[in-house]
Formats: sequence, structure tokens, C-alpha cells
Amino acid sequence: GCNSSATDESSKKDGVVEAATSTNEVEVIAPHKDLNQEPIPVKIERIGENEVNVEMTSQITDIEISPDYNYKAWTFNGEAPGPVVVVKEGDMINFTLKNMDPAIPHSMDFHAVHAAPSKGFANVEPDETGTFRYPANKPGVFMYHCGTAPVLSHIANGMHGTIIVMPKDGYPNDAEIDREFVLIQNEWYKYNDINDFMNGEPSQVVFSAKALKEGDRNTNGDTFSLKNEPLLAKVGDRIRIYVNNVGPNEVSSFHVVGTVFDDVYIDGNPYNHMQGLQTVMLPASGGAVVEFTVTEVGNYPIVTHQFNHAQKGAVAMLKVTED
Amino acid sequence: GCNSSATDESSKKDGVVEAATSTNEVEVIAPHKDLNQEPIPVKIERIGENEVNVEMTSQITDIEISPDYNYKAWTFNGEAPGPVVVVKEGDMINFTLKNMDPAIPHSMDFHAVHAAPSKGFANVEPDETGTFRYPANKPGVFMYHCGTAPVLSHIANGMHGTIIVMPKDGYPNDAEIDREFVLIQNEWYKYNDINDFMNGEPSQVVFSAKALKEGDRNTNGDTFSLKNEPLLAKVGDRIRIYVNNVGPNEVSSFHVVGTVFDDVYIDGNPYNHMQGLQTVMLPASGGAVVEFTVTEVGNYPIVTHQFNHAQKGAVAMLKVTED
Amino acid sequence: GCNSSATDESSKKDGVVEAATSTNEVEVIAPHKDLNQEPIPVKIERIGENEVNVEMTSQITDIEISPDYNYKAWTFNGEAPGPVVVVKEGDMINFTLKNMDPAIPHSMDFHAVHAAPSKGFANVEPDETGTFRYPANKPGVFMYHCGTAPVLSHIANGMHGTIIVMPKDGYPNDAEIDREFVLIQNEWYKYNDINDFMNGEPSQVVFSAKALKEGDRNTNGDTFSLKNEPLLAKVGDRIRIYVNNVGPNEVSSFHVVGTVFDDVYIDGNPYNHMQGLQTVMLPASGGAVVEFTVTEVGNYPIVTHQFNHAQKGAVAMLKVTED
Ligand SMILES: [Cu+2]
Ligand SMILES: [Cu+2]
Ligand SMILES: [Cu+2]
Ligand SMILES: [Cu+2]
Ligand SMILES: [Cu+2]
Ligand SMILES: [Cu+2]
Ligand code: NA
Ligand code: NA
Ligand code: NA
Ligand code: NA
Ligand code: NA
Ligand code: NA
Ligand SMILES: [Zn+2]
Ligand SMILES: [Zn+2]
Ligand SMILES: [Zn+2]
Ligand SMILES: [Zn+2]
Ligand SMILES: [Zn+2]
Ligand SMILES: [Zn+2]
Ligand SMILES: [Zn+2]
Ligand SMILES: [Zn+2]
Ligand SMILES: [Zn+2]
Repeated sequence: GCNSSATDESSKKDGVVEAATSTNEVEVIAPHKDLNQEPIPVKIERIGENEVNVEMTSQITDIEISPDYNYKAWTFNGEAPGPVVVVKEGDMINFTLKNMDPAIPHSMDFHAVHAAPSKGFANVEPDETGTFRYPANKPGVFMYHCGTAPVLSHIANGMHGTIIVMPKDGYPNDAEIDREFVLIQNEWYKYNDINDFMNGEPSQVVFSAKALKEGDRNTNGDTFSLKNEPLLAKVGDRIRIYVNNVGPNEVSSFHVVGTVFDDVYIDGNPYNHMQGLQTVMLPASGGAVVEFTVTEVGNYPIVTHQFNHAQKGAVAMLKVTED
Repeated sequence: GCNSSATDESSKKDGVVEAATSTNEVEVIAPHKDLNQEPIPVKIERIGENEVNVEMTSQITDIEISPDYNYKAWTFNGEAPGPVVVVKEGDMINFTLKNMDPAIPHSMDFHAVHAAPSKGFANVEPDETGTFRYPANKPGVFMYHCGTAPVLSHIANGMHGTIIVMPKDGYPNDAEIDREFVLIQNEWYKYNDINDFMNGEPSQVVFSAKALKEGDRNTNGDTFSLKNEPLLAKVGDRIRIYVNNVGPNEVSSFHVVGTVFDDVYIDGNPYNHMQGLQTVMLPASGGAVVEFTVTEVGNYPIVTHQFNHAQKGAVAMLKVTED
Repeated sequence: GCNSSATDESSKKDGVVEAATSTNEVEVIAPHKDLNQEPIPVKIERIGENEVNVEMTSQITDIEISPDYNYKAWTFNGEAPGPVVVVKEGDMINFTLKNMDPAIPHSMDFHAVHAAPSKGFANVEPDETGTFRYPANKPGVFMYHCGTAPVLSHIANGMHGTIIVMPKDGYPNDAEIDREFVLIQNEWYKYNDINDFMNGEPSQVVFSAKALKEGDRNTNGDTFSLKNEPLLAKVGDRIRIYVNNVGPNEVSSFHVVGTVFDDVYIDGNPYNHMQGLQTVMLPASGGAVVEFTVTEVGNYPIVTHQFNHAQKGAVAMLKVTED
């Protein structure tokens, strides 16, 4: 598109405040104007062999997308992408969504579950709480997102994330994995500008790392966090990445420089096994489990090989040190 | 691109008539100006165990793409996409193309067959009839389209569709399928504007349903038909969709909200089996057979998860009712 | 994007010389201005059962992209894409890069090898020579490219190519193959214009053929060579294409008109076997081995079925003659 905002730093430096006064930009809607809700952590609690409670919020929270540029994002739990949710194949999910947005209804569409969207993914009104129950009976790396119309705006404004359904018999190489990461790719556009969402080029394309367990890295989708502070591994490690491309619009050509994927499972389903891939093609919303080995000390960039998107931010660094 | 026609309803409301008087738009070529040829049904007749006659027309017919916006399409049989053609693996096809276009040659390129394109897919001149013969010896869900230069214009103006070659031993789950649909994704651009075809963003991205048998839904590629009048199923149904992305330019991330595909066959070939996909990646011209189960009563949107394209129209509704 | 250069022949006719004087265009950097370095052939020498020396140059060489339009490309060995490199699974590669560019460092990132990019793919300064050593232990069709920042510019300006690692046990149908070709798809943008690389539509999308052995066709990525002088085969041939989409930005929907791929190996790994594909989806940097049969005498166009890109040049002709 004609959108040159990716390189037009001057129009960005002051973020949404300046944006709101620019004739070219969409204003933040009034009830969101001075809102920056503190992130509320996701609650995931196993209450039975095959049953888990998941509680999330929808909330309005500033996300620093590039240095000093904040986007007043529509989020799950104050993160964009939202926190990773991990359950087991065969789990029943009791899901609670607390909508803290004072102005707009939100909802949850987990790609991992079976539900009639008109009911299971129904809107939760502002300041209300909705509860839902559905089974996660397929293993894999699935997108979740707000499903409220216009869905494009809710996803593009930040309401996306990843739910992993661990296969009940695991993955074939579980015993050999030394280290694992969750990486999500998403795009950012001009603030809440549905015309740019529909017809523009992304302003930023970014990766985020999400914490599988306490103490893991947990970042937002931004251009700098995973460059300034790399992901860490040891030489000789076999590494697994749960990767998910949440869009909203673009496909991804996911690649790790300096290695070849030994094993890839498309959408994270163990049945969909490929070997020796240089790059995995991720449709919009698609996921994968990729496994590879880092054989030398040094820095390994992780990119989408659609290099216009790498140039706009979609590079994460993996730093490999001595054992 | 800079094309904002998707949201610029004023320039569209009166359709091609107004379009032809707008400085921004390409005029309808003179011999097509007052032409709106009545759709001629496709004729498919089995004449032997492994031989089938297929007769189609190329014709100029108005297609209502969005409410009250007509596109003077170049079509097969007055539909865009054209009618679905179904044959069996191993069939010899005797194909007849009657070109009713008074001005432009057209042709047929079936992706399902083996033929030297310079002969088997040769031009049929205006007001002439061509006959061709070629084998369909691979099972699958294949694109067909006009192959006359510039091919981009012939496809983008509407000359595309799907030919299904049923596998001689069927698909593994044939006995379990309760309901099946043919869905096609295509893009529309500014009227016959090769610069927009080449460099623009699509004005509309749409789905159509095509009739596998008499009485089935049969729609054109538009933004409203499959929303206003949903596809129908019963709770618990195992559903199969033969899906094809005919482009001309974009790939598709085909997804059904509220379910996970139990089984997917890439390009509809039973050998190319995947399981548990949330989304299937369709290249331009690519097809698939996808099978899934609807476990609850309600409405299930079918989308491309490239949500800019869903926002431009690529949403079909599947309504699931009590048994 | 707003880039209409693909159809705006007048702004192209005189190529980079005129381009350099146009306000719309980026100037050739001063040390490249009168440089047009004679292509230096790649040197590939087997020095052991599992060891091979590969010597390449980085150099500045004019590439004729469309008739009479020269692009002062950043190249490997004066070709764009660079020469195909063929090794065997299990080979150790001793790689030498001689940087003949007087102004800019360059480097080599082979997707086929295991190496820490910060060392194995390190910059070679202007007029210097670098040596590297790494194993190619996965079979397949891999991209290579310059990895110097900004990588997008180095790839988009021409520094890309294909390395094939032949599987140690061959491909399943080696004995049946009558003819094989290496085809690469790449995009060209406005000269060295990183904003166009990031946000524009490609000016040209092209195929090139690369010589597997002496006497084979070897062309640059241009709009005309493989149309004016087709690739050649005999009727009944089973043909294999090693195909690679080097981007930098776009995915490819690789298709041969008039046939169906009998067998496809994603990224060229024999494990990743698909059958009966009409079109193979190639991510940016992705490769494949595709095999098919030409059953009739005539001309078979080879395209990306993203037809905006075919219209911009991505068509190669395969001419099939009597036995
Ligand atoms: Cu929302
Ligand atoms: Cu690379
Ligand atoms: Cu036609
Ligand atoms: Cu085609
Ligand atoms: Cu979704
Ligand atoms: Cu370079
Ligand atoms: Na785009
Ligand atoms: Na585009
Ligand atoms: Na798209
Ligand atoms: Na683009
Ligand atoms: Na892209
Ligand atoms: Na494209
Ligand atoms: Zn939402
Ligand atoms: Zn893009
Ligand atoms: Zn490896
Ligand atoms: Zn046509
Ligand atoms: Zn687009
Ligand atoms: Zn299911
Ligand atoms: Zn370079
Ligand atoms: Zn494009
Ligand atoms: Zn064949």
C-alpha cells in the first residue's frame, strides 16, 4: 500500500497521543483515551484429570511496539499477543472471560476447541464476565483471538494469542529436547484503522516469546525485545519451538538461520510430520512444532523469510553459548 | 495498493454503468456494452464407463458481487466462478467450448488433465465452438480457468471454477460423511483493470457454493449469498468441503470457526493426508478436501483467516440445527 | 503499492542510467557507478568422498531483467540468481567468498548447512576473501543468499541462489527421470529502494534456469529468456524440476500448465512426499523437487499461479517435441 509509516519515524515517535491529533490517524475512542489497564495475569488451574479452569481478561493496555512507540492495544490480559494457554489433549476447558473494557464487547475464539461459535464464542459485554465450557480434543499449536465483529479490528488491535494442546502421548522426540520456546508472529498496522488493516502494508511485523512455565521469557509483539535480549541455548541443544502466526493478514515463512529443522509437525499435530525443512509455511492462524539442533556457539537469527517483514521487525535472536 | 474501492461504496453503488463513465475506471469494451447473456447450463453426460462429455460456454454475464453492484463478468456458463464439473479418476473427457462472446477468444485450461496447452487449451474464436479430448487421471480438487492471454485478465474477470476428479477408490471416510459442499474462494478487482489486477489490493474476496447434485446451493462469488442464506447441516454431522482457491493472485488460509479439521487431503488427493489442522494453506489455484464434525447447534463462520480478505467478503455461514 | 513501474515502460527503457537521474529513483552508490564486473565462474571441486571446495565471488554486475532494462545488481559470480551449487548429503563444504565489491561487505548464508551465523556467515570486507567450513547434512533444495545487513537489500538487489544437496540414497524415481531442470523464482523491485523492497509491489517476478551440468541452460532472473528460448523436452518424458523461490518477499504457487505433478518432495527432502499436486506452495526461500510427465507435443507454460506475478514475468516455456 501507500502506507509509509514503517519508515516514517517522525509520525510515530510520540505514539498514539500524537497520532490522535494527526489528521491522518484514527483517534482513540473516548472511553479508551486515558485508559491503560494494568495487566492481569491469566489463571490456569487443573481441577481434574481431564478438566482445567482458564480465566482471562479483555482489557485496554498500552503495548510498546517499537522503542518509545506505544499502541493502545485491545488485549487479553494486558499482553499482545496474550499469554500462552497450555492444556492437554482431551481436556474440558471451563473458560471465564472478564471484560474490563468499558466500551466494547469482546469474546474468545479458541481454535483448539469444538463449539458453536454463536454460543461458545459469544460476546461478553463491557464490565461483564462470561463463562464457557468446551473440549480440546485435538493436539496442536492453535491460535486464539477475539471473535467480536469486526474480527479484523479486534485481532489487528492486539486480541490474539496461542493455545497449545499437548498430545496425550507426547511428541516423538520429547526425550531429546533440551530447550523449548513459544514464538508468535503478528503484524501491527496504523492505530485502529480498518482501512489500513484491509488495504495497507503492515507497519511492523514482530515476534514475541511466551512463557511456557514460570521464569521463562514473556514478551509482547515488538521490534526490539528479542533482539536486545536474545533467547538462550547451549551448544549441542536440540531445541523445540512452538510457533504460531496470528496475522491478522499475512502468511509466514518461518526460518531459523544457521540450521535446518530436523522435524516439523504442521499445526503441532504429531501426525503431520515433515523432515529437513529449511522453512515452514504458516498460513494466517497456522502453527507448527519445529525441532532443530544448534551445533556451534554464536548467534542464530529467527525470521520470517518474507524479508520485507523481517525488515519491519520480525527477527528474534537465539544466542548459543558453551555447555 | 492505493485502491480504496472496497470501502468506497459511493463509487460502486451504481456498478459498471457508472463505472464506465468514471475517469478512474476502465470502460466496458464496446461489444460487451449492452450484453448480458442468459446463463446456459453446463452439460455433463457420461457416455461410457470411463468417458464423459462436458459442454460449456464462455459468455458475458452480469454478476452481482455485492448488493446492487454488478460486474459484467467474463464467465463460463454465466456463472463466476463457473459451474463445478465432476468426473471420475480415469475418465476421458470430451470437452466442447461454445464461445458466445462476440469479441474475444476464450479457452479452457483444466488443471485436472494432461494435455499440451498449445493444443488442448487452444483459443476458441468469438462465436465459434471448439472440441478437445483429454484424460483426467489424477484424483483431486482442481482449478479450471480460461487460458487466453492475458490470462490474468481472463481469470480476474471471472473465468474460473473447479473440476473435481473423484478418486476411483473413494476417500477413506466416504461412509461417514453426512453432508458435502463445494466452496470456491476468488478475488474481484476494479473492472477489467489490468493495473489493479497486477498491483492493487482486491476490492472483494468472496466464497461461492457450487452444486454437486441437483437441488444443491449454487451461488456466484459474492459478498452476501452465503451470509444471508447459510449452508445447512445437522448437529453431529461429519461434513466434507471440497475447497478451491482460484485467485487470481492471493493465497488462502481456509478455516472453519468452531471446529478443527479431522482430516485434510491436500489438492484432494487421498495420498496427501493431514490430520487435526485448524487452517489449510491453499496456494493460488490450490484445492483440498477437508472433513470436520459440528458438535453443537448454532452458526459456524467459514473464512479465510487472512482477515483483511474475510473483512472484504470472504465469510460463508454454516447453520447447524437439531437432528 | 503505488508502484506502477511494471507497466510504466517509459521510466524503465533506459535502465539504471536514466534511473539515477530520476527524482523518483535511488541513485547507484558512487563506487558502483561505472562498475560492471565480468562474471567470474563458480568453482566447485570435490576433494574427497565427503568434502568439496566451493569458491564464489560477490560482485557488481549489470543484469538485463527485461529487454533493454539493466539492473546494476549485487550478485554472486555476476549472475542473479547466482550459479546453482550441487553437493551431496554428508559433504563438508570448504567455502571461499572473494568479495570484489569495492564498497560493501557481503557474506554467504547457505540454508543447507549447520553453522553459527555470526561466524559461519560472517561479513567479508570489500576486496577481501573469507573462508568458511560447514557440513551439508540434510538433503534438499535450499536457498542461499547474502546475509549482510540489511539482508532485505542484499537479497532484493540480487544476492540469492540455490544449493542442492543430493540425497545420499537418491530420490525414489531417479531411474525414471528423462530430463531435469533447476528453476528459481525471484522478484525485482525499484533499484536499491528499501522502501519499495518493504512496501511496494514487485516490478518484475521472474524465473531463471540454472545449469546442473555443463551445456545446460543458465539464465538470469529475467522476463524473456525462458520465453524466447524455451526449455526443451521430448514427448513422454518424465521431467524433474528442482525449484526454489528466493523471494525476497513473496510466496510462490508453482504450477506447470497441462500436467499434474506425479510426485513432489517438499524442500527436496525425500521424506516429504506428496502426490498428484496441481500446484506446490513455496514459502519465501522454500524449495521442492517436482516430477511430471509430458504426454503430448506442444508448449507447456510454467508459472506461479499467483497470476499478478505471472503477468509481471514469471512464465517459463517448456517445449515438447517428437521423440
Ligand atoms: Cu475484542
Ligand atoms: Cu535465509
Ligand atoms: Cu476468456
Ligand atoms: Cu492454471
Ligand atoms: Cu480464528
Ligand atoms: Cu551482499
Ligand atoms: Na499484503
Ligand atoms: Na498484495
Ligand atoms: Na493477502
Ligand atoms: Na505485497
Ligand atoms: Na508478505
Ligand atoms: Na503475491
Ligand atoms: Zn475482540
Ligand atoms: Zn505485504
Ligand atoms: Zn540439523
Ligand atoms: Zn478467458
Ligand atoms: Zn493483499
Ligand atoms: Zn473435530
Ligand atoms: Zn549481501
Ligand atoms: Zn503482491
Ligand atoms: Zn501426470
